[in-house]
Amino acid sequence: MSNIEILLVYFLGKIMLKRIENFRKILNEKNVDALLIKSKTNKKYIGALTGSGVKVLITNDKIYQIMDGRYVNEAKATTSGFENVVFNQGNSYLQEVKNLLKDNCKLAIEASQTLVKEYLEMNKYGFDLVLLDNELEASRKCKDDKEIALVKKACEITDKIFKEAIDQIRVGMKEYELSALLQYLAISNGASGMAFDTIVASGERGAMPHGRPTDRTFKEHELITIDFGITYQGYQSDMTRTVCIGTPEPEMKKIYDIVKEAQQKGVDFIKAGITGKDVDQHVRDFITEKGYGEYFTHGLGHGMGMGDGELPLLNQRSSTILEEHMIMSCEPGIYVPGLGGVRIEDDVLIENGVGVPLNKTPKELICLEVK
Amino acid sequence: MSNIEILLVYFLGKIMLKRIENFRKILNEKNVDALLIKSKTNKKYIGALTGSGVKVLITNDKIYQIMDGRYVNEAKATTSGFENVVFNQGNSYLQEVKNLLKDNCKLAIEASQTLVKEYLEMNKYGFDLVLLDNELEASRKCKDDKEIALVKKACEITDKIFKEAIDQIRVGMKEYELSALLQYLAISNGASGMAFDTIVASGERGAMPHGRPTDRTFKEHELITIDFGITYQGYQSDMTRTVCIGTPEPEMKKIYDIVKEAQQKGVDFIKAGITGKDVDQHVRDFITEKGYGEYFTHGLGHGMGMGDGELPLLNQRSSTILEEHMIMSCEPGIYVPGLGGVRIEDDVLIENGVGVPLNKTPKELICLEVK
Repeated sequence: MSNIEILLVYFLGKIMLKRIENFRKILNEKNVDALLIKSKTNKKYIGALTGSGVKVLITNDKIYQIMDGRYVNEAKATTSGFENVVFNQGNSYLQEVKNLLKDNCKLAIEASQTLVKEYLEMNKYGFDLVLLDNELEASRKCKDDKEIALVKKACEITDKIFKEAIDQIRVGMKEYELSALLQYLAISNGASGMAFDTIVASGERGAMPHGRPTDRTFKEHELITIDFGITYQGYQSDMTRTVCIGTPEPEMKKIYDIVKEAQQKGVDFIKAGITGKDVDQHVRDFITEKGYGEYFTHGLGHGMGMGDGELPLLNQRSSTILEEHMIMSCEPGIYVPGLGGVRIEDDVLIENGVGVPLNKTPKELICLEVK
Repeated sequence: MSNIEILLVYFLGKIMLKRIENFRKILNEKNVDALLIKSKTNKKYIGALTGSGVKVLITNDKIYQIMDGRYVNEAKATTSGFENVVFNQGNSYLQEVKNLLKDNCKLAIEASQTLVKEYLEMNKYGFDLVLLDNELEASRKCKDDKEIALVKKACEITDKIFKEAIDQIRVGMKEYELSALLQYLAISNGASGMAFDTIVASGERGAMPHGRPTDRTFKEHELITIDFGITYQGYQSDMTRTVCIGTPEPEMKKIYDIVKEAQQKGVDFIKAGITGKDVDQHVRDFITEKGYGEYFTHGLGHGMGMGDGELPLLNQRSSTILEEHMIMSCEPGIYVPGLGGVRIEDDVLIENGVGVPLNKTPKELICLEVK
């Protein structure tokens, strides 16, 4: 290895150790002897293999990677810092967990990863089980430098392909053609895939906040809501823009301007120390004041990162206090049934205490040339 | 409605009733009073809404669709034959299940759909729970006319886009570019998405049966294994072809010819009345005879349909007896580490007792022009 590579391994190792220590704190908080991790996202977060045949077991002084024989070579080549425990594919990994722990030990498991059959089997092995709700996800809520760099890169690719895609929008194009084009551009630009099912909702379909693309064709003067994100090295982006072919109807232009102002108010209001509910309320009050409160029918935003249980939520029930290096979406919308809708969304990082949008795509209404 | 539409609704209704009756047989087989269905695939199969807020409850004389308020309009507009039960989004659907059933009733649930938290909650409601393994999936194993038509259509689209995609293969193209192109063509041709993560494995990477596309570039004289499928109205296709840019190395050509003959032997051997293991053994014996038995490292095939727990499996352990109107993949492969690999796959329907391949793409080695 070159000196640079050795340094890189050193710093990555330090980051992983910090993440593992954060997970380990849960042992004390929940008063358990060990923590069993099966979630792909949580395994990836601490640098373990993500395959379904791999589990991670964390105790106060050890961290085991338990796997069947298929994973041994990959574990040796690509992971470090774990004690690797290998079992025969025909056996249950639970026997290995049992061997590694004391009798009657208290074991925390991820409730969202454990099906009833496995739970009943775990009981047979005599573990004293404690169900984790979102404690692991909560410990991931503030992003470290490596995570921030990856989300920024995902947003950069998102900006680039959005520009390329809207250049190809024309009257008569189908919603799903645009969705397919975004996917093609994403993968061609190094994304491993889309972060979620792309939303393309044109004309009166814009009134559906989660309108999946159909064979409806684009028409002049209509708005098109495009909500998509990509996955880059496991980290996600999520951006929404609403564009128009030609000039919009006056009422839709009015709605657009309200949503744009509301979204900017949200971004400007995001700061360390306030709650998710505070931000949602601030934006909701503004939209209500403008007479469209009843048409803003969802929460303002959600945590960003690997896309699995991310915090904070920005909605009417969220008591999560915003902190430095959290990343969240800010995405108000107005949806008028029978007429149409507008949503604008950026991903926002809290840096030096204040919200910094990571997307560079303009938020002025883009009126595309009629082709 | 026109007369044709009325007829269509009538026949679709008959199909759905038949499917529900098949599910209902499980009540007797498992000696339970009711069957709770949460799986998206199983709900779709009987024409219910597939959203996560919808559950189906089947008793001997009723079929309920239990949903929160968000789904009411869609349920009225797009489903029929169910008694719709609506509850407030804040409450648990389990209270509604409880209200609909007698006390201490025996309730069958899908083990693969039930997380531990929900299971513990169900216990609190006092249900006598019976876990279903793959009984529902088994009752879906023979496809009806509507299902067969959809799989055929999915295969037809697959043939079409394969032809379009390989026309664009050239030296220097990256594996993931081809994968992105297939996805783009699929969605542009009416697919809702890919059936699974596309496999593109070129050169020595062909030795990995499940090689996900990388940034490796295509080279002259190398084989490229392309394994992909699409989803069309909920039904899937799955096809593999191995192509070459220019002329292949002699050993790879030899391997190709063995796999092609083995695959044809498999298709010809598929018939009603034999087991999944019989077909696998027949093809495995041939490849072994040719000296490559140790390099055929997976089962011969799997059931096709909606892609979730489909039967039959064609492998060394499969005792499923093949029946009229089952659909399965037939996909032998030879993978030589350090050298490369070949796999050829068709989807095969049992019709009038014998196997009929649904893919029309040729199986002669396609040697692409060097561009």
